[in-house]
Amino acid sequence: MDARKAIESLTVLTDMVLPSETNPLNNLFGGELLARMDRAASISARRHSRRIVVTASVNHVAFNKSVPLGSVVTVEAKVSRAFKTSMEVFMDVWVEDRESGIKTKANEAIYTFVAVDETGQPVRIPELVPETELEISRFKGALRRKQLSLVLAGKMKPSEATELRALFME
Amino acid sequence: MDARKAIESLTVLTDMVLPSETNPLNNLFGGELLARMDRAASISARRHSRRIVVTASVNHVAFNKSVPLGSVVTVEAKVSRAFKTSMEVFMDVWVEDRESGIKTKANEAIYTFVAVDETGQPVRIPELVPETELEISRFKGALRRKQLSLVLAGKMKPSEATELRALFME
Amino acid sequence: MDARKAIESLTVLTDMVLPSETNPLNNLFGGELLARMDRAASISARRHSRRIVVTASVNHVAFNKSVPLGSVVTVEAKVSRAFKTSMEVFMDVWVEDRESGIKTKANEAIYTFVAVDETGQPVRIPELVPETELEISRFKGALRRKQLSLVLAGKMKPSEATELRALFME
Amino acid sequence: MDARKAIESLTVLTDMVLPSETNPLNNLFGGELLARMDRAASISARRHSRRIVVTASVNHVAFNKSVPLGSVVTVEAKVSRAFKTSMEVFMDVWVEDRESGIKTKANEAIYTFVAVDETGQPVRIPELVPETELEISRFKGALRRKQLSLVLAGKMKPSEATELRALFME
Amino acid sequence: MDARKAIESLTVLTDMVLPSETNPLNNLFGGELLARMDRAASISARRHSRRIVVTASVNHVAFNKSVPLGSVVTVEAKVSRAFKTSMEVFMDVWVEDRESGIKTKANEAIYTFVAVDETGQPVRIPELVPETELEISRFKGALRRKQLSLVLAGKMKPSEATELRALFME
Amino acid sequence: MDARKAIESLTVLTDMVLPSETNPLNNLFGGELLARMDRAASISARRHSRRIVVTASVNHVAFNKSVPLGSVVTVEAKVSRAFKTSMEVFMDVWVEDRESGIKTKANEAIYTFVAVDETGQPVRIPELVPETELEISRFKGALRRKQLSLVLAGKMKPSEATELRALFME
Repeated sequence: MDARKAIESLTVLTDMVLPSETNPLNNLFGGELLARMDRAASISARRHSRRIVVTASVNHVAFNKSVPLGSVVTVEAKVSRAFKTSMEVFMDVWVEDRESGIKTKANEAIYTFVAVDETGQPVRIPELVPETELEISRFKGALRRKQLSLVLAGKMKPSEATELRALFME
Repeated sequence: MDARKAIESLTVLTDMVLPSETNPLNNLFGGELLARMDRAASISARRHSRRIVVTASVNHVAFNKSVPLGSVVTVEAKVSRAFKTSMEVFMDVWVEDRESGIKTKANEAIYTFVAVDETGQPVRIPELVPETELEISRFKGALRRKQLSLVLAGKMKPSEATELRALFME
Repeated sequence: MDARKAIESLTVLTDMVLPSETNPLNNLFGGELLARMDRAASISARRHSRRIVVTASVNHVAFNKSVPLGSVVTVEAKVSRAFKTSMEVFMDVWVEDRESGIKTKANEAIYTFVAVDETGQPVRIPELVPETELEISRFKGALRRKQLSLVLAGKMKPSEATELRALFME
Repeated sequence: MDARKAIESLTVLTDMVLPSETNPLNNLFGGELLARMDRAASISARRHSRRIVVTASVNHVAFNKSVPLGSVVTVEAKVSRAFKTSMEVFMDVWVEDRESGIKTKANEAIYTFVAVDETGQPVRIPELVPETELEISRFKGALRRKQLSLVLAGKMKPSEATELRALFME
Repeated sequence: MDARKAIESLTVLTDMVLPSETNPLNNLFGGELLARMDRAASISARRHSRRIVVTASVNHVAFNKSVPLGSVVTVEAKVSRAFKTSMEVFMDVWVEDRESGIKTKANEAIYTFVAVDETGQPVRIPELVPETELEISRFKGALRRKQLSLVLAGKMKPSEATELRALFME
Repeated sequence: MDARKAIESLTVLTDMVLPSETNPLNNLFGGELLARMDRAASISARRHSRRIVVTASVNHVAFNKSVPLGSVVTVEAKVSRAFKTSMEVFMDVWVEDRESGIKTKANEAIYTFVAVDETGQPVRIPELVPETELEISRFKGALRRKQLSLVLAGKMKPSEATELRALFME
């Protein structure tokens, strides 16, 4: 199974904010953005693994910037690291001003997917090769985030999460 | 502004998994569940604050159990802690077997909301009083999770996150 | 087949009124509320019967109170009486004021469901045991409503509808 | 305000049953049909009154025939009687077999609408003139149904519902 | 296989413009109208052929008139000509003013459908018999439009499109 | 008003085919694809003009290849030519095989948009500068298509459509 480059999984989902997706302040509902990001990220994971993929977890997502009705929102998703049967997908979300054409970063998000066969059993996936500086930095951070995820789920003792311990004991 | 009990914010959203919400394995899409949980959690936050609320962040969410088409899914949301203008909402998600009637826990999730006025400015909210053992335990954990959130967003140095440091240095 | 208590079928569906569900006066469309109630009631019927259930009829539903955009609407459904293969489900619909937190009753509705097997054939269901005063009163009224339904469908002569006749000849 | 003929309010809504509208037996959800009928009936009421209209009540609706995925469903709605500010709308629902082209009646339904101004206040509407035998028969039945509605809502004593009493005392 | 009259395929889809279907000017999105017309036209093609039908092409569609939120839109679709396995469907779209009741033509559109069996293979369909003056005129134009479609798809040389050449060489 | 390059308007909308968007053969509905293309194309037109845009017309669209449930569909839209107040947008639609990762062209489509101000009045837009061979070829074809559109709408005599005449008289 040959390794694949990060860029091969790049997925771009550009779409508008429709009236049915807004809250009382006329901004995009957080829940709608979460669902849209899930679709983009799962296509990215599928492009890397060429398998059926299912959402395994959502990492911490912060909504720093509200996204008004009528905005154009671009979700760019790329696999940041592949483990045995799971992949971390990193997303950048951009909002575009109609008059100036300027794109502002609205938020980042990280989802994890598992590749499965037709019966739902996890299957091995190719390794991921990061190339750019940003891809390499996200690739490295992925291990720390995986440990955090296992600790939060009670599947790893904090004392065994060596990457994380290093972070908090600096 | 009088404190309010956790139970006053309890919100129950029971609904079916419809065909338009399923993935190629005929299970509920992760993204759909994220959106449904956002609606339930925001109602809970609104019940505590009696204000317009907007999603500020989504904590780590793990999808441990697939939810097949036709299932009945119950999302139970309750505010676990109130800070000055933000609230943490804790959710338990249950899936119900039609024939036995048994409910199994599918996953837990934690979202944070900010209370705002009509112009989108954050406003003060009442304190939350936990009563049951579970409510008290979640109330306590909320501070640690808030520090984690600030660290991940680069708004707090790991060395200042005293609650978290304690966890990893045990 | 053991009888089941009314409370075991209680189903609570709390959700917001979204912009895509409103009429030109910015209130919830009657049709959307009818669809939402159908989903809550069918889950309630399924909880009592533990079978696939299909909507058999909708009793008279009055929309007494308009439900504005952004409202939180709670549908509470409970089986009120079980017949051989069908169940009457009684619903109370509440609308909640954001600022005061006060819930007002918006309307009541009654739907009837039939329990079926995988081929769509009706199957026997457990009896229902009402416990509270309200459950008992609704249990008693169900027979009268069933007669009315049969008369309106032309399947029973008015002269044979003894419960109904009594009502109109008081 | 000139009276209008029943035929002027005729509204035909022909559409397919889509996969997102079906239950576990692959038939149209009762709730979806209720919502679709509400849209057709409200257009019919609007055509008669030329006003904004809101759903006031749904009369007894029986689902006699299941409607499978992929069916073509035709809802035909026509105002059956106009009162001072409200209208009764009568609907016939047809399901069409693709191969034979034969249309079968799936069910009938009756909804009531109120005409309102921009502030939601009820306004007077034109009288309705029935012409065909069927229109005249439905026009006559409307008064009896209105009494039934008032009795069920507790706004009229059964003993005062003269049209209804006659029915049950034959 | 007996020929069928154009009128037998008439399909009327009357529905409202809902808030979730509008653009920033509060008018119906072009894309929504295209989708709605596709549903109406495919029912019309199915009524003529009594087969499963799939969209083969969309002819030139001009949006001459904006359709505001809350409008009642009527799509009238009728097969204009049947070829061996395909049908041209002609649609007239009307928008209705609530106060005057006047219907204005918003646009015309032409879609082509292919009739297929359960495996997706094209199957022969009955001939179409036009009766009214308008039906006959549209029937005649269909051949010219078919040639145009083949030329635009690069499947016919402009020099062989005799009907079209005549038009441009007048 | 400075001219803009074609590439600046490139819009990529990658998304899955969901169960609610499929026909009886489990392929994407033509109408759904038309609506999705309308959204992508309108974002492209907005990026070129930095104005509110409304769909003016849809050119001939052929559906050459069915798109099965679960496919990943990529719509790539780019403005091909700008006129005074209107733009032609050219789209390529790709379908991706999960296992091989190969993208196949499913169809091409051309939509036209008008740029408007807040009151809906057409406004001038920048010129478009094509750069690649394909962009230049589509830029040239746009004039011929505009004439065709005017002829079909009865707004230009065939004899005046010089570009078109040339095509058919070769």
